[in-house]
Amino acid sequence: MSDCARGQGTLIVVTGPSGAGKGTVLGRALPALPHIHYSISATTRKPRPGEVDGKSYYFLTHEQFRAMIDGGELLEYAEYVGNYYGTPAKAVESELARGNDVILEIEVQGALMVKSKRPDAVLVFIIPPRFSMLQERLHNRGSEPDDVIAQRVEKARQEYKSGDKYDYIVVNDNLEDAVRELSAIIISQRCRTEKRMDLLTY
Amino acid sequence: MSDCARGQGTLIVVTGPSGAGKGTVLGRALPALPHIHYSISATTRKPRPGEVDGKSYYFLTHEQFRAMIDGGELLEYAEYVGNYYGTPAKAVESELARGNDVILEIEVQGALMVKSKRPDAVLVFIIPPRFSMLQERLHNRGSEPDDVIAQRVEKARQEYKSGDKYDYIVVNDNLEDAVRELSAIIISQRCRTEKRMDLLTY
Repeated sequence: MSDCARGQGTLIVVTGPSGAGKGTVLGRALPALPHIHYSISATTRKPRPGEVDGKSYYFLTHEQFRAMIDGGELLEYAEYVGNYYGTPAKAVESELARGNDVILEIEVQGALMVKSKRPDAVLVFIIPPRFSMLQERLHNRGSEPDDVIAQRVEKARQEYKSGDKYDYIVVNDNLEDAVRELSAIIISQRCRTEKRMDLLTY
Repeated sequence: MSDCARGQGTLIVVTGPSGAGKGTVLGRALPALPHIHYSISATTRKPRPGEVDGKSYYFLTHEQFRAMIDGGELLEYAEYVGNYYGTPAKAVESELARGNDVILEIEVQGALMVKSKRPDAVLVFIIPPRFSMLQERLHNRGSEPDDVIAQRVEKARQEYKSGDKYDYIVVNDNLEDAVRELSAIIISQRCRTEKRMDLLTY
């Protein structure tokens, strides 16, 4: 019961290979879900056009990021294609304690780190219907050179090997279906008996 | 993996005390859910006005019901306020094998029997926000004498004691919210990783 005390929110980790569309699916699902806190990651990668510091990410220098690692201020962090990505722990813990669910949208490496630290976290792996569609989608996005895309695809292959570590798999083929599935997974966590033991009073 | 082979549906057991409104919630949730088979129970109780044999229930004599018990043709059965209720196993198994989810709307005693036989079954307990509302709702239904209602309330008290055996609790306060929660629980089962291992091919 320690992690599931009355009123404690659920930590939900949404991950998946680059090109699976996890950001798009989440962006469509979140507005309809109450009591949800979307955790903003810190990263050392450069902002893409349209990304805003403190909203898309906290954009940090390598030095700033290392200081957070050393200070134990990150719930997880991962290096990916030469950059760091991480989750500041403080906001996550306080939102969970307030009874809100917290969504992390993070890379696979970090997701597995969260699961090992907090086995009560719910891991959702978003993938396309077929592996071959990943490379296709990355090319169509057109934001990265071919060698970076090749690195991402090889990374995805490794990530699929850890697939059995995830609690749920959402298939992003039709966007509406994917949004429906992800929303259902999030809503259903609140209905788990261990979260609602107080309702069994008679 | 034996119970979770590719394409195998999920057995979902919806239960709860009399007066919790499980029939109403399910009735509203089912039409929007594809690939769902609603299992029709057999019972020895007399039809209520409007109930149709083979649709609401299979209405059987005590002799017919006992023959099904003796023949091992029931997935579960329970005696409740002097009558038998049970689930014919054959249709359930064939629908699961076809990849459809199967919903059983049954009494608590039978639900626990299913869970002990099939630990992969998902048990959902539907209850009102407060225990005291059960008696109130049963009175308002007006279909049964006071002593039968008193029996049902005492039975409900026992059923609450087994509450921790359920996987999920749905609170039926606002009907729309209850329908949303039950639907989410059902949809999320299809996204469990063990049901979608075939999608991890790379």
